[in-house]
Amino acid sequence: MVKISASLMCGNPLKLEDELIRLEQAQVDMLHCDIMDGVFVPNITMGLYMLKAFKENSRIPLDVHLMVVNPDAFLEQLAEIGAEYVTVHAEPVYHLHRTIQNIKKLGMKAGVALNPSTPVESLKHIIKDIDLVLIMTVNPGFAGQDFIESTVEKISEVKKMLEKNNVEALIEVDGNINNKTIPWTVKAGADVLVLGTSSIFKGPNADYKKEVESIIALTEQYSL
Amino acid sequence: MVKISASLMCGNPLKLEDELIRLEQAQVDMLHCDIMDGVFVPNITMGLYMLKAFKENSRIPLDVHLMVVNPDAFLEQLAEIGAEYVTVHAEPVYHLHRTIQNIKKLGMKAGVALNPSTPVESLKHIIKDIDLVLIMTVNPGFAGQDFIESTVEKISEVKKMLEKNNVEALIEVDGNINNKTIPWTVKAGADVLVLGTSSIFKGPNADYKKEVESIIALTEQYSL
Amino acid sequence: MVKISASLMCGNPLKLEDELIRLEQAQVDMLHCDIMDGVFVPNITMGLYMLKAFKENSRIPLDVHLMVVNPDAFLEQLAEIGAEYVTVHAEPVYHLHRTIQNIKKLGMKAGVALNPSTPVESLKHIIKDIDLVLIMTVNPGFAGQDFIESTVEKISEVKKMLEKNNVEALIEVDGNINNKTIPWTVKAGADVLVLGTSSIFKGPNADYKKEVESIIALTEQYSL
Amino acid sequence: MVKISASLMCGNPLKLEDELIRLEQAQVDMLHCDIMDGVFVPNITMGLYMLKAFKENSRIPLDVHLMVVNPDAFLEQLAEIGAEYVTVHAEPVYHLHRTIQNIKKLGMKAGVALNPSTPVESLKHIIKDIDLVLIMTVNPGFAGQDFIESTVEKISEVKKMLEKNNVEALIEVDGNINNKTIPWTVKAGADVLVLGTSSIFKGPNADYKKEVESIIALTEQYSL
Amino acid sequence: MVKISASLMCGNPLKLEDELIRLEQAQVDMLHCDIMDGVFVPNITMGLYMLKAFKENSRIPLDVHLMVVNPDAFLEQLAEIGAEYVTVHAEPVYHLHRTIQNIKKLGMKAGVALNPSTPVESLKHIIKDIDLVLIMTVNPGFAGQDFIESTVEKISEVKKMLEKNNVEALIEVDGNINNKTIPWTVKAGADVLVLGTSSIFKGPNADYKKEVESIIALTEQYSL
Amino acid sequence: MVKISASLMCGNPLKLEDELIRLEQAQVDMLHCDIMDGVFVPNITMGLYMLKAFKENSRIPLDVHLMVVNPDAFLEQLAEIGAEYVTVHAEPVYHLHRTIQNIKKLGMKAGVALNPSTPVESLKHIIKDIDLVLIMTVNPGFAGQDFIESTVEKISEVKKMLEKNNVEALIEVDGNINNKTIPWTVKAGADVLVLGTSSIFKGPNADYKKEVESIIALTEQYSL
Repeated sequence: MVKISASLMCGNPLKLEDELIRLEQAQVDMLHCDIMDGVFVPNITMGLYMLKAFKENSRIPLDVHLMVVNPDAFLEQLAEIGAEYVTVHAEPVYHLHRTIQNIKKLGMKAGVALNPSTPVESLKHIIKDIDLVLIMTVNPGFAGQDFIESTVEKISEVKKMLEKNNVEALIEVDGNINNKTIPWTVKAGADVLVLGTSSIFKGPNADYKKEVESIIALTEQYSL
Repeated sequence: MVKISASLMCGNPLKLEDELIRLEQAQVDMLHCDIMDGVFVPNITMGLYMLKAFKENSRIPLDVHLMVVNPDAFLEQLAEIGAEYVTVHAEPVYHLHRTIQNIKKLGMKAGVALNPSTPVESLKHIIKDIDLVLIMTVNPGFAGQDFIESTVEKISEVKKMLEKNNVEALIEVDGNINNKTIPWTVKAGADVLVLGTSSIFKGPNADYKKEVESIIALTEQYSL
Repeated sequence: MVKISASLMCGNPLKLEDELIRLEQAQVDMLHCDIMDGVFVPNITMGLYMLKAFKENSRIPLDVHLMVVNPDAFLEQLAEIGAEYVTVHAEPVYHLHRTIQNIKKLGMKAGVALNPSTPVESLKHIIKDIDLVLIMTVNPGFAGQDFIESTVEKISEVKKMLEKNNVEALIEVDGNINNKTIPWTVKAGADVLVLGTSSIFKGPNADYKKEVESIIALTEQYSL
Repeated sequence: MVKISASLMCGNPLKLEDELIRLEQAQVDMLHCDIMDGVFVPNITMGLYMLKAFKENSRIPLDVHLMVVNPDAFLEQLAEIGAEYVTVHAEPVYHLHRTIQNIKKLGMKAGVALNPSTPVESLKHIIKDIDLVLIMTVNPGFAGQDFIESTVEKISEVKKMLEKNNVEALIEVDGNINNKTIPWTVKAGADVLVLGTSSIFKGPNADYKKEVESIIALTEQYSL
Repeated sequence: MVKISASLMCGNPLKLEDELIRLEQAQVDMLHCDIMDGVFVPNITMGLYMLKAFKENSRIPLDVHLMVVNPDAFLEQLAEIGAEYVTVHAEPVYHLHRTIQNIKKLGMKAGVALNPSTPVESLKHIIKDIDLVLIMTVNPGFAGQDFIESTVEKISEVKKMLEKNNVEALIEVDGNINNKTIPWTVKAGADVLVLGTSSIFKGPNADYKKEVESIIALTEQYSL
Repeated sequence: MVKISASLMCGNPLKLEDELIRLEQAQVDMLHCDIMDGVFVPNITMGLYMLKAFKENSRIPLDVHLMVVNPDAFLEQLAEIGAEYVTVHAEPVYHLHRTIQNIKKLGMKAGVALNPSTPVESLKHIIKDIDLVLIMTVNPGFAGQDFIESTVEKISEVKKMLEKNNVEALIEVDGNINNKTIPWTVKAGADVLVLGTSSIFKGPNADYKKEVESIIALTEQYSL
């Protein structure tokens, strides 16, 4: 069954306690936390001390997406906070295998994210070591961008690579995931959907529980 | 009269709407917003979209402290948000005069921050162009560090430099500013105090208004 | 029919107005402009204000080859100048898809260049988004280097990738393209030849028109 | 007597042979060549192979201003070209003394440039080793910016430093040097004026000789 | 026959003369020298002047492994020392073909090293130009790490690539190569084993000759 | 009394055990260990595991000179080894005060090194926090360079700064310190001399004890 990771950067930053309560009621599976450094990506969003507060005030597992040039610098702090998944980008890291090792030694699950233009071959020699592959369906850095259709094919490629290697890692998709793009990504093999403004966070009066149920119903039509 | 800039990174990140209301009631003069990139400083705190929310939900001016290697990348976004003060560090910037020009061209007030080890001479040729000098009294990156006493002397030096040049820029101090260190910094010439956990944000039941009044009373004893 | 892009860095830098006139008479298809930053490549050649002058004084389209670590910094300036093609290198860019998007949003055609050692797989997920692939047949940075024969195979690979994806992008080749190497590259699928000292710019008395005609005649024997 | 260094980046890039002839007739003392890397400064202008052509076609000494993060990479090439003065920026270089040594070992004269915000103290321990100090009176990177008045005081400071150390190095000024700013800079101690669009390069019909004579007449009123 | 490259970083750094004598007696084929810069890898080990001393005091060829971000900076010094093999990493280098060319122009043999996570495809367009491929079987930077089993498959892939291209380059393996891992790597196609603490350098009383003979005997059982 | 720090990079790298014995007999005060990263300086010399061996085999305190862009990365390893003094360069570090704090928190003594061109003012706000100032009398990176005379004046300036602040930190000098330059540096205030090839390490037959005694005798004539 497809899982939901709610993108906290799309919540109301002034009322995150409320957002956490609404997300717990909606029974989302993970809290997607985007950490940006303004160097790997041209934006800065939320900080590590905020993740600590999320963890202390919610039972929903943290799904941390590090969009930073030097992810190793943040791993110990994330382990102390209690993050469940930590996903790093393949593009800026020289020693990707070591970074994955470091995440796992610290007791967390390790993911690798690929930008839209990055070939799936980058995963070839680490596919057995990871717990999650994050396929970016927009260029990382901002919410509200257009879904890049050529990324759907990458989801299928990762799916095949996982099956061929007999690996159970999750495939997560991130970037304009909505009623139109969910069928494409779920049919291609997505296991986790990162959902933001267009799917859950529809404003102060939105019923997150209903939105999540509707998405799950949709995914069930298309799940492999 | 000494001004108060409340450090939002010390507020409860889950209830920032409440924090803004309490700070408005307490009549603080500015909202100090720490933007870190994990490269200039070893931490990441809050993001630009949060500043947008602060501005839209409060009349208190934004006092933005950019602890980043490439501040120019964020200036347009800050101008759109409506930031009043934008302060950049002298250490990582090759063309400090240009960055100050850029801040001012965009209609914002320009500040320059100095790390504890950075000499005041760095300000010599831009002192007439700036609206604020931020003297770091701890090494930037984290709350809760020890006040570095050798920085008090730098406040006096900046004060003299401003007077000598007949410039009205504000002197702001940041880093463990509390009942013990306020007398030192105010006597030395501080105009704006950045206040955090030990002075305003004393937990959910704290009376911010009372805290601020008490600090103002204290500063009045020591103001030049 | 194979197109000719004349490498202006091989012209006489003191008489570029004359060079432009001779190239117009020779009816070359594009002006190849090499912009280097001394960081991505160990040389610096011509500047952006020169491209502006080329555009203002010639109707030949500009084919700009950015050999720089941060191509995004120059895109707006190039759009204002009116460049037709802007080609960036795959090697130094984290977000290649975004850079291509940016070029196209600004109304220019987007190319991607590959160094001799860079695999063609780098293009896999952006092949449908680009207008030109530039295969470097020497290491970029200097004129007058030896043609690297292993790059011919890459031209064929790109050709197949384009056909398989039903994409009409041009394949351009750059680096010691002359009577000896034209047959190899054209047979392999090259659509645009970057020509320099050994093919067009043969000195003050050279007849560029005749040189170009002779090259076109040669290419016609080998075109697919 | 004050010297004139004509900024070639302000000449017509399509007719540099003509520009060189006109500058020889005008008897300017040096050809100011701005080499930018798009990293230290946000622009790229002319290249090293162009300087080679200037040298081969003119007897006017080359006055090279390296606005680059890694000047050492270009010194050998400049020595082969025959550059007379090579000036590097103090800001991006860790081992400024070594870079100066390298320039001089290669038989060239060594200059150090200071950005508008950079204190003159940066020169203190190398003042006896250099042949030229370049005081930027605008932020480097572009022509046509406003003169920054606070830089005039720096010229006087350098003058004093040179006199105190009994050093004969030249003081050069660069950035919007025109009839209005020449009196200020010459009175403060400038020995070499970098002149561009507003003083020499006044278009295709300008009489450079007359312009230079008029400037020299002006400087003579204000020379120390 | 499989060759032995003894990792000098595993010898006693206070008695390297003795180590060289013992290694000569043991008839190892090469001296593996790890040069680290603390930037590409998080450690610094030995220096270039030490390699000079190895060369002057031993007839065993030097097999230099450059774990540095800028290998080109060290090539001339290595050629003067007389290094036989110089191996650079594919990950941090923009112009891998040029770096290989530079090594060979200086009269040395050129190798390319791949981190555990780096795909073999990185070698595709330079496979005919190189003399050695170094497959890292641990993440580079430290001795004593666990062998990463997924790297064995990469050895086979490189073997196939070499055969397909009819190239005679050596395949070297580095990282916890011992009695347990030698069979795996040799069967997969390894030609050169980098041996350290667990295979040769077993302390002051170890008989290096006997250790090497025992390893050679082992490899002979598994050689292709 | 002036102290001697013997520069181990000038010893015979193949016989460091012997060198340590000879240096113990000569009663030098410290072992000067140069750690270079090939990025801050254009060379790499010795590694951290070698320092461990020095410490385990000698009672002479380690005086570590970090010529690296990121000194903080090595501090924990140095503390485990048991280094007494750790000296970092002022030039490449943004948060010099923090780095000094880190060294001292780990139980080591903290020094700051200044390149020949770096002004003494860089020390102004940390002078009370440090145990040692290292004045480079050559540009760091290589042995055997010419002594730069303008650095003598800097020694006096540091001496005055220490006295004015009532601080007992040592002044160390490094770079071609020999019979000719010892009088200059000692008279100016040097407390620790880094000695290499020209003063102690005069080859296999040199009597280090005698050399050290002769230097001490010389220094006694000039000590303040």
